[in-house]
Amino acid sequence: MSSISVGVLGATGLVGQSFILLLSSHPFFRLTTLGASPASAGLAYSKAVENKWKQSTCIPSSVQAIKLHECKPEHFSSCQIVFSGLDADVAGDIESAFRAANIAVFSNAKNHRRDPSVPLLVPLVNPHHLSILPHQRSLHTPPLQKGFIVTNANCSTTALVVPLSALQSRFGPIDQVIVTTMQAISGAGYPGVSAIDILDNVVPYISGEEEKMEWETLKILGGIAEDGKSFDNHSAHPIKVSASCNRVPVHTGHIMTASVKFAKHPPPSIDEVLKAFDEYVPPYLPQSHPSFNASASDLSKIIPTAPPKAIHIHTTPNRPQPLLDRHLDKGASVSVGRVRECGVLDVKFVVLGNNVAIGAATSSVINAEIALARGYI
Amino acid sequence: MSSISVGVLGATGLVGQSFILLLSSHPFFRLTTLGASPASAGLAYSKAVENKWKQSTCIPSSVQAIKLHECKPEHFSSCQIVFSGLDADVAGDIESAFRAANIAVFSNAKNHRRDPSVPLLVPLVNPHHLSILPHQRSLHTPPLQKGFIVTNANCSTTALVVPLSALQSRFGPIDQVIVTTMQAISGAGYPGVSAIDILDNVVPYISGEEEKMEWETLKILGGIAEDGKSFDNHSAHPIKVSASCNRVPVHTGHIMTASVKFAKHPPPSIDEVLKAFDEYVPPYLPQSHPSFNASASDLSKIIPTAPPKAIHIHTTPNRPQPLLDRHLDKGASVSVGRVRECGVLDVKFVVLGNNVAIGAATSSVINAEIALARGYI
Amino acid sequence: MSSISVGVLGATGLVGQSFILLLSSHPFFRLTTLGASPASAGLAYSKAVENKWKQSTCIPSSVQAIKLHECKPEHFSSCQIVFSGLDADVAGDIESAFRAANIAVFSNAKNHRRDPSVPLLVPLVNPHHLSILPHQRSLHTPPLQKGFIVTNANCSTTALVVPLSALQSRFGPIDQVIVTTMQAISGAGYPGVSAIDILDNVVPYISGEEEKMEWETLKILGGIAEDGKSFDNHSAHPIKVSASCNRVPVHTGHIMTASVKFAKHPPPSIDEVLKAFDEYVPPYLPQSHPSFNASASDLSKIIPTAPPKAIHIHTTPNRPQPLLDRHLDKGASVSVGRVRECGVLDVKFVVLGNNVAIGAATSSVINAEIALARGYI
Amino acid sequence: MSSISVGVLGATGLVGQSFILLLSSHPFFRLTTLGASPASAGLAYSKAVENKWKQSTCIPSSVQAIKLHECKPEHFSSCQIVFSGLDADVAGDIESAFRAANIAVFSNAKNHRRDPSVPLLVPLVNPHHLSILPHQRSLHTPPLQKGFIVTNANCSTTALVVPLSALQSRFGPIDQVIVTTMQAISGAGYPGVSAIDILDNVVPYISGEEEKMEWETLKILGGIAEDGKSFDNHSAHPIKVSASCNRVPVHTGHIMTASVKFAKHPPPSIDEVLKAFDEYVPPYLPQSHPSFNASASDLSKIIPTAPPKAIHIHTTPNRPQPLLDRHLDKGASVSVGRVRECGVLDVKFVVLGNNVAIGAATSSVINAEIALARGYI
Repeated sequence: MSSISVGVLGATGLVGQSFILLLSSHPFFRLTTLGASPASAGLAYSKAVENKWKQSTCIPSSVQAIKLHECKPEHFSSCQIVFSGLDADVAGDIESAFRAANIAVFSNAKNHRRDPSVPLLVPLVNPHHLSILPHQRSLHTPPLQKGFIVTNANCSTTALVVPLSALQSRFGPIDQVIVTTMQAISGAGYPGVSAIDILDNVVPYISGEEEKMEWETLKILGGIAEDGKSFDNHSAHPIKVSASCNRVPVHTGHIMTASVKFAKHPPPSIDEVLKAFDEYVPPYLPQSHPSFNASASDLSKIIPTAPPKAIHIHTTPNRPQPLLDRHLDKGASVSVGRVRECGVLDVKFVVLGNNVAIGAATSSVINAEIALARGYI
Repeated sequence: MSSISVGVLGATGLVGQSFILLLSSHPFFRLTTLGASPASAGLAYSKAVENKWKQSTCIPSSVQAIKLHECKPEHFSSCQIVFSGLDADVAGDIESAFRAANIAVFSNAKNHRRDPSVPLLVPLVNPHHLSILPHQRSLHTPPLQKGFIVTNANCSTTALVVPLSALQSRFGPIDQVIVTTMQAISGAGYPGVSAIDILDNVVPYISGEEEKMEWETLKILGGIAEDGKSFDNHSAHPIKVSASCNRVPVHTGHIMTASVKFAKHPPPSIDEVLKAFDEYVPPYLPQSHPSFNASASDLSKIIPTAPPKAIHIHTTPNRPQPLLDRHLDKGASVSVGRVRECGVLDVKFVVLGNNVAIGAATSSVINAEIALARGYI
Repeated sequence: MSSISVGVLGATGLVGQSFILLLSSHPFFRLTTLGASPASAGLAYSKAVENKWKQSTCIPSSVQAIKLHECKPEHFSSCQIVFSGLDADVAGDIESAFRAANIAVFSNAKNHRRDPSVPLLVPLVNPHHLSILPHQRSLHTPPLQKGFIVTNANCSTTALVVPLSALQSRFGPIDQVIVTTMQAISGAGYPGVSAIDILDNVVPYISGEEEKMEWETLKILGGIAEDGKSFDNHSAHPIKVSASCNRVPVHTGHIMTASVKFAKHPPPSIDEVLKAFDEYVPPYLPQSHPSFNASASDLSKIIPTAPPKAIHIHTTPNRPQPLLDRHLDKGASVSVGRVRECGVLDVKFVVLGNNVAIGAATSSVINAEIALARGYI
Repeated sequence: MSSISVGVLGATGLVGQSFILLLSSHPFFRLTTLGASPASAGLAYSKAVENKWKQSTCIPSSVQAIKLHECKPEHFSSCQIVFSGLDADVAGDIESAFRAANIAVFSNAKNHRRDPSVPLLVPLVNPHHLSILPHQRSLHTPPLQKGFIVTNANCSTTALVVPLSALQSRFGPIDQVIVTTMQAISGAGYPGVSAIDILDNVVPYISGEEEKMEWETLKILGGIAEDGKSFDNHSAHPIKVSASCNRVPVHTGHIMTASVKFAKHPPPSIDEVLKAFDEYVPPYLPQSHPSFNASASDLSKIIPTAPPKAIHIHTTPNRPQPLLDRHLDKGASVSVGRVRECGVLDVKFVVLGNNVAIGAATSSVINAEIALARGYI
């Protein structure tokens, strides 16, 4: 496969750094162009990021000398794809401008998530939502040939919807979900949370987070109209989601407890639920795709950043834990443990998702790999 | 009021240290006798506890020179009351021996909590359960004149049942409770949790804790039979409780998210719920007590360790927090915040209880004050 | 003693909050006026500080309703004293303006510390440096009747110089000091250190801190010229100080290891050093003062915020610790432990100072009490 | 190169786990046999270590099913080498028994470190000390053909002596070293430090640690007598070392500040010191070895676990940091930063060593590779 030139917007932030680590060693995406704020434009990446590089590996040597540009499409004309780690206060307009310039945008920002023509894509859950892209392009005057925006979901939502998708696809509609999150500080970016606020503490509130989890879950787990022009947001059978979001003194890894009630009566047994988690395969490719039945090893050439299995099941009772399990599959899978009956709803379990990997940059990169495989790029 | 001589069992442990701080400055309990393991017997308290004293205040000077005894009733013959901070592996038999020696035992250990003749007493919730004590005494041969055992509840349960009691007493039976705890390390005693296990981490499991919360809530919030000889454990209208218990890197203060469904339809409004929390007054004394209508200041002479109000309501959205709020009212009250509608059950909120104060020693001391006021000592 | 009206500049910051706690219960300073940034001016204190109040006790009720003013002298005309917790970027000019308005300024900011007419005052060490104040006033045109500026020292320096002063006053000049600090996050203010930078980490650098420790020590431990018009900055026998400053994930309490070499040969024994620490009495008052020989209890009426003893000596080998010892004497004293021989210099020991108490607001308040007792106010 | 069969003693502990990760993917050491306490003997490794595995990667699949043996030589007869992660309370006798059984023992335990015939080997510093092994073997009756014991050093000492060795080999003897460590919790093993003792805290004492640093440095940096029968422990020019050791709430990575005084006058400049660090090459092989002048890539076939460079120099002022730099070179190198003049001694700098890698298992594995290359196995 020939390489595809890609860029990163917001390259000096935490999400941007994750993009750079993923893309600098990617088998067919070739990272050529980096965008940052006007203040950093003109600087070499290693210089601009000097005191902001928070990764435990060094800046990739291939990236250190790349000069930063302002986030304007004209500087990215060689790129077919840009990945956006921009802050929400600027992401909306910039991403729209790149789309208008016929560049495919995979964004981690929240700005376009509620747009009814933009897929809110968790790669382990709803890749088929990409089928709205022709409609999205058609809304522009003149219609776009190549440009589009795909967003990934909030980091907490992403972790939650993976096991929910496994349950829904096996057992049919879910009625109710009560979820309590314990979220890592890296989810708030850098500098983000003050150490004074979180050391030896839990903060039982993250602005806007509960609303995101409650709303995004419906869009992601919902369907798409037959004409491919709208999402149904699960309106035929809305899932009631009640989220309580907390910040905890953990670097990376959002862990959450979830209780679920099925529409189906009687509900599946714990063994059936475990089996559904274990056997869950994300719908990366449509049935019509020549690689639909490809072996895992062949599939990994097409979607190389996807994890071997979407759900990692833990059977020891005190797992998953952020410290020990956040790096499983390089953070691309979701961990589930403590699957057991709930005394109020039907079943409850613990979910752990790596908020800086599958909860952020890793999702965007897999989304791009899938979009490429599905022919949208 | 003349002073009453009291002792502490398990005086060198974390709970024992809390007892010592509370009792060394108590207006009418006079701390005279300390019990510890045979290995420490004979040592002065300050010597025995030298490297185990984990409080941010010094060992009270009045206690430093007290010689430690083995936990045998003959060494506590001058005491009318003992407070037990013993570990569960020894607490059961020792506490029974003290009861048999006609000493009133107020225990923080779990051993006797499920005994159908022992009150599981949260002082802010069910002081009236003390009325089973004559029955408890009568079970011994010959019947005891003075001895009895009262236990306080698990530290997480204690925090939860206070707002539940406020709701139940105002709105009638509660149907369902889903609770997720984030519990402090001090709840596991000393040395307890290894730093390797909890720094930069959350452990989504505490052995036996969820079962305790689910069971103890029923006993505490339930009634007592008319003949005063049994608890009904809420059997007429059992509350379904589903608990998920987590350990977080916080020194002190168990914080939890709770969702509640009422039997009553329609459920109370958020304003009504807030009012119920705000106006909740624990039933410290029976209506027949001469001080039943005493002013707060007069009541504080009888039950001096009780908090001014049982529930401290927080209105800023990011409160309560363990770091900032665990010392309110010296940890004797319970904090509630973020009271709002739950998209699945009726109402949800955040609860914070100081696990080493109202969740442990402080409860026992208030229990003793109430038992004295009610004439059981 | 009649009360003296005082104000606080920078009242909403961390240092300002400490001032408010100290002053709201002060026996003779009466807190009447609060200053903050123009953005907060006009708001009630409790409103302005709502999400920034980081203390574990509530905002004092007497302060909650006080309206904030801009930090201009005309709003503080009723105050004889202002305490400044201003940030360095604005403190310099504002404090000068208050001095020019004949208000006594006790500042925690660094701006005026190197001014050769401003005392750099650690109340446990060099209160006699106040004697430069007439000279400071005389430098203004026309000379000031009442206004002056007194600064306290950097929080790390403050902890270090207390034991050094005890040694110098007993054994004569010190030749060399090598000190390595482990400093709490609250020393950087709020929001200050990002949790991402310090959780599970040590940062071996604090900008400007080492220079401050190395320079301030000379000014503080040095003398004052006979004409009272200049500090000698220990120029006759300069102490060589080498500091290495580190940030650690601790809320409060700067702990440091120090090695000291004396000019005196042979050096004092460890027992003599311990005795010097134990017997050290700060020169709060001049010999000529009527209360110079006052009992501790009488002195505590004049300088009520001073600690009972300046140095708290720890004899258990693993003490002092920030977590356990930072609140001794409400943080007004300095802890010293592990006094032992140094294989390279003469003696080494561990020092702990509460950076938000004696290292900040508490020092300023004691300085004001001393200045009042010495007749400068 | 054909593979060499090796075993691990104390395989379930933290150090044992590190050995297993290093050896399960080693190019020529083949891990075949695991030893643990009698209680674990007979269990499969994955079963025995289930709740004690504290690594962020899974147990290597090749190791999971290996049955644990008691630590007796008869179970390890197929092994030429054993690596010991045993606790000090049992390591001494067990390691001696393995040596007597003609097995080469590379130990992380402290028991034999002071034995005058046992090399205290930091692979980046004194591999030539292996030349005492013939003497060590000769002390047994009858002399051993193959068995010997090599220990690595204390984790803090190991980090310190690498830059000291670079300085000594370039500039001649060092006179004085003052070092203050901030050590990670993993240095104390599991469960090791209680979270109650270290969260939000620094403990300024680690039993025996300062003595180890002060003594081991002399043995490691000293020479070996011409007859190869004794170490001189730097007796001709003893380095005065003064250590202050502290525990900090960091998972992994011991960071320390060091001040150094040279015998040489004038001392080297900062630039010369930096150059010495940068150009330092450990004496892995003797000049007589055929690979002495091998390229780095060829050398890495012989000593594959050694880092590309022994010292990683940091130039940004706030580095190295444990969180960000402990995994450089998989923890096999030592980080040095902030090299600058010391106002008291000559030069000061910051050192960071990964205590579970180069400070423990990694050192032992490199030691074994060197011993093999030098022909002792």
